[in-house]
Amino acid sequence: MQLGLIGLGKMGGNMRERIRRAGHTVIGYDRDPALSDVASLKELVGSLAAPRVVWVMVPAGGPTQSTVDELAELLEPGDVVVDGGNSRWTDDEKHAADLAKKGIGFVDCGVSGGVWGLQNGYALMYGGSDADIAKVQPIFDALKPEGEYGSVHAGKVGAGHFAKMVHNGIEYAIMQAYAEGWELLEAVDSVTDVREIFRSWKEGTVIRSWLLDLAVDALDKDEHLDKLKGYAADSGEGRWTVEAAIDHAVPLPAITASLFARFASRQDDSPQMKMIAALRNEFGGHAVESK
Amino acid sequence: MQLGLIGLGKMGGNMRERIRRAGHTVIGYDRDPALSDVASLKELVGSLAAPRVVWVMVPAGGPTQSTVDELAELLEPGDVVVDGGNSRWTDDEKHAADLAKKGIGFVDCGVSGGVWGLQNGYALMYGGSDADIAKVQPIFDALKPEGEYGSVHAGKVGAGHFAKMVHNGIEYAIMQAYAEGWELLEAVDSVTDVREIFRSWKEGTVIRSWLLDLAVDALDKDEHLDKLKGYAADSGEGRWTVEAAIDHAVPLPAITASLFARFASRQDDSPQMKMIAALRNEFGGHAVESK
Amino acid sequence: MQLGLIGLGKMGGNMRERIRRAGHTVIGYDRDPALSDVASLKELVGSLAAPRVVWVMVPAGGPTQSTVDELAELLEPGDVVVDGGNSRWTDDEKHAADLAKKGIGFVDCGVSGGVWGLQNGYALMYGGSDADIAKVQPIFDALKPEGEYGSVHAGKVGAGHFAKMVHNGIEYAIMQAYAEGWELLEAVDSVTDVREIFRSWKEGTVIRSWLLDLAVDALDKDEHLDKLKGYAADSGEGRWTVEAAIDHAVPLPAITASLFARFASRQDDSPQMKMIAALRNEFGGHAVESK
Amino acid sequence: MQLGLIGLGKMGGNMRERIRRAGHTVIGYDRDPALSDVASLKELVGSLAAPRVVWVMVPAGGPTQSTVDELAELLEPGDVVVDGGNSRWTDDEKHAADLAKKGIGFVDCGVSGGVWGLQNGYALMYGGSDADIAKVQPIFDALKPEGEYGSVHAGKVGAGHFAKMVHNGIEYAIMQAYAEGWELLEAVDSVTDVREIFRSWKEGTVIRSWLLDLAVDALDKDEHLDKLKGYAADSGEGRWTVEAAIDHAVPLPAITASLFARFASRQDDSPQMKMIAALRNEFGGHAVESK
Repeated sequence: MQLGLIGLGKMGGNMRERIRRAGHTVIGYDRDPALSDVASLKELVGSLAAPRVVWVMVPAGGPTQSTVDELAELLEPGDVVVDGGNSRWTDDEKHAADLAKKGIGFVDCGVSGGVWGLQNGYALMYGGSDADIAKVQPIFDALKPEGEYGSVHAGKVGAGHFAKMVHNGIEYAIMQAYAEGWELLEAVDSVTDVREIFRSWKEGTVIRSWLLDLAVDALDKDEHLDKLKGYAADSGEGRWTVEAAIDHAVPLPAITASLFARFASRQDDSPQMKMIAALRNEFGGHAVESK
Repeated sequence: MQLGLIGLGKMGGNMRERIRRAGHTVIGYDRDPALSDVASLKELVGSLAAPRVVWVMVPAGGPTQSTVDELAELLEPGDVVVDGGNSRWTDDEKHAADLAKKGIGFVDCGVSGGVWGLQNGYALMYGGSDADIAKVQPIFDALKPEGEYGSVHAGKVGAGHFAKMVHNGIEYAIMQAYAEGWELLEAVDSVTDVREIFRSWKEGTVIRSWLLDLAVDALDKDEHLDKLKGYAADSGEGRWTVEAAIDHAVPLPAITASLFARFASRQDDSPQMKMIAALRNEFGGHAVESK
Repeated sequence: MQLGLIGLGKMGGNMRERIRRAGHTVIGYDRDPALSDVASLKELVGSLAAPRVVWVMVPAGGPTQSTVDELAELLEPGDVVVDGGNSRWTDDEKHAADLAKKGIGFVDCGVSGGVWGLQNGYALMYGGSDADIAKVQPIFDALKPEGEYGSVHAGKVGAGHFAKMVHNGIEYAIMQAYAEGWELLEAVDSVTDVREIFRSWKEGTVIRSWLLDLAVDALDKDEHLDKLKGYAADSGEGRWTVEAAIDHAVPLPAITASLFARFASRQDDSPQMKMIAALRNEFGGHAVESK
Repeated sequence: MQLGLIGLGKMGGNMRERIRRAGHTVIGYDRDPALSDVASLKELVGSLAAPRVVWVMVPAGGPTQSTVDELAELLEPGDVVVDGGNSRWTDDEKHAADLAKKGIGFVDCGVSGGVWGLQNGYALMYGGSDADIAKVQPIFDALKPEGEYGSVHAGKVGAGHFAKMVHNGIEYAIMQAYAEGWELLEAVDSVTDVREIFRSWKEGTVIRSWLLDLAVDALDKDEHLDKLKGYAADSGEGRWTVEAAIDHAVPLPAITASLFARFASRQDDSPQMKMIAALRNEFGGHAVESK
């Protein structure tokens, strides 16, 4: 089938390649003419036969919003827009409603896979009506990993990004779990080879996982991670996960602890710990005596 | 080689079977005569040729202590005792010192694998001197999973149980990660098939793991886990992990949150939440007005 | 001076009384004619001399929004609207902008004091321009506690509600602190009189506070809080505090833990703990053996 | 009455002064001859009439243990030893048992008050038998704050230190509560005067407390705490509180979060966050693309 693909950065470019390898036709558009197959969104739409499927793979927020707005003007009833970016699930319902006014369908799709996706396939979580999803299905089938897993119709519009967001929230806490264990092992004198302990866990243990494999890969490059700074960014989806949990009164202690650990890692000095130090000074002269 | 194995419960019994399949001779002792190959520890020791290797696989604490004490009387210099139970790492140093007075070696070994171990092998983390471990090595090789992973010489005496303890602490937090994500997905109306989302994550995602596979198995038996109570025991190793972290001033927010969630799950009613309710009553008449 | 006061529930009614005692004229409006001094908002506005100050004390969200909308139509340039309800600080900027189009000023004011306010005064945190606040100042002075503390110009529009929100977030964690300590003391056999311990802390300790006094009051009514259920509602401001912290990448581990403890207290059974139990069943047959 | 007091550092010295002001005779011993009233423990004991009360005010652990051991040799049946230091409650039972063999009584006493104690009195929490405590009561009455609060017979031997330990655990979380709120307020642009907000809370609010008063004092010296480093020591009692909670399966999320925040504040770089950074590098090339 034909697919219009908007956004040909590293992620979008690899996805185009994987879809083409599956035998589909991809017409790509990017702001950068060096990457783009066509000169404009209008030309992209004009080059696709109806009913069209246009996949948006641009940064969440403003860029996705303006792209959806423009497509609403260019597409026809029966066409379908897929948002495969990292949009917040709360944006999806608005996009779907705006497009529905023109008779255009909408599917949201969370995509996992990063640099490994071209080769291994991308995990896909999508939300929308059965009818809209049916029009995109061959593309989903091309992108997903081989085998029976790796893609899911998660629910209504928004459910795809919601599921991907929760995936990332879980990811935060699993990473934190290994990180905490690693720090504790490194802190203890009688334990002499933490890297080999991690390596041994790759088989036969309860905690074997792909992230554990990656941890071993990282330790093989830098046994004590001396070359790294203990500084961790966060991509937004961890924050949204906690916010969604608060909206639904679901306690998420481990995921939230993982998010807060990242926040703290980015502070040169902790304001709240200054206040703790200040209070200790006030009540006790802690440096010189027991309280 | 010959091995004396003390403790032939489900775990010890399966280990005996796996070691025998590898061609070794196992003489087992258990308090239950129906399970035991010999009538007493004395007979067990007498039936082994020196230097002996005796593997203790009994409950941690008192039973392990008394078994080690008895072996200290029965064994000879050059023999080695392996504690393969769930002992706290702080017990190991004491056991090693007591046995060393008699010239008897000591190795501690954390064993993971549970009901899957007989078939897939047991992950092993052991601590002790190179000389002592060399005497046990053929047994380790028989027990571990096939392939290059699954066993490790973690460090000095105590390091084996310490590594296994941290493994379990990590396990707590990974389980909590999936559990939190599952609860959040179940709480949201637009998400219509949480089980299929979990299943889809088995390939191509960052969070694929053996525990995820088990979660899918559990959901296949009981899609919304309606048959289960939200009650989780803890085996001691999670507690020890947090205590070890406190000893070393290592922050473990996610692992500790996971432990506390289990504590709370076992309370019919939360005393601390009674106090919160009491305070709210005192200051605000919260039921009837905004504060 | 004259004040128009909208919303005469228990909170608004007590505030009217305290303002009147200070010698000001309060014309109150409430949907309930039995409480109201006037028949309509229009009559309220008509009965005040310009420049008018109208204090809105109705539930946050829709009711406050519609009241502000109506006042925007009725008031004149130079008048000022005060939102003294529990509005989210993000609503304030919108209200201020809408009213500014008509030349009407806006002040947001977080009010603390509950049932104790009539007698002891209300703590006030307000945000807005100096000029707008000057018009309301006599009312603030009437409402606040005697003495030099209890009211503050916290910053620009929104800062009043923001400060009150953080006040409540802090309150959550302080309550949780006492609650945790109380549960731990109650759990230990050698401690025989927890209530008297709490009472003793009222003087000479680092942790003496008004909330501690309230805890003792509560224990005097019900020593072990047997009559209460461990169930704690939350009023929204704790949630907003955590969301604001996430927006600003500020880690709030204790306040968030306090919020999550309340969420968990309201669950009959914990879905996430069902998943933990399910996973334990899958990997270990935990009931019958050590893992 | 007469009191023997061992340990005349800043804390012990002030306590001696307060007891003397109440009209009692204090004979003090310190390793530092410049501070000491007598040349040895033996001379101290010899100068007191039976039944003697000897108050030990030396560092917890080894120094307290050796002092108790020495007193066990010097004192007579019917005498009483008070441990007023920061001992772990688990030490008390051992001390009591050792002394009981000689017919000597034992009382443990947690003391709060620090540099403010001489003037305002010390909060006291003590554990032991009614008979032993009766012998010390005049000293407790001299040390405690005036008024009806500030001292408590908390339970059996160990209960005094346990109650003081929990007091400190609660203190950690209350300090953390204010610290988190302060950091959040400082992070928001629309809030222009955080110090004045804190000051305003001193009256009329739910969160007024002595620690809040101290926070205002600290901010008056250094409005944004620029002169302080965000580095917070911990005195041991917070750690013991968490360990006691683990022993009793009591969840302490806020207190533990407060302890961990202090641990993290003392790390130049966070090992666990290095692992998070390493994992992010492995799976995503996060610097260059969305995952």
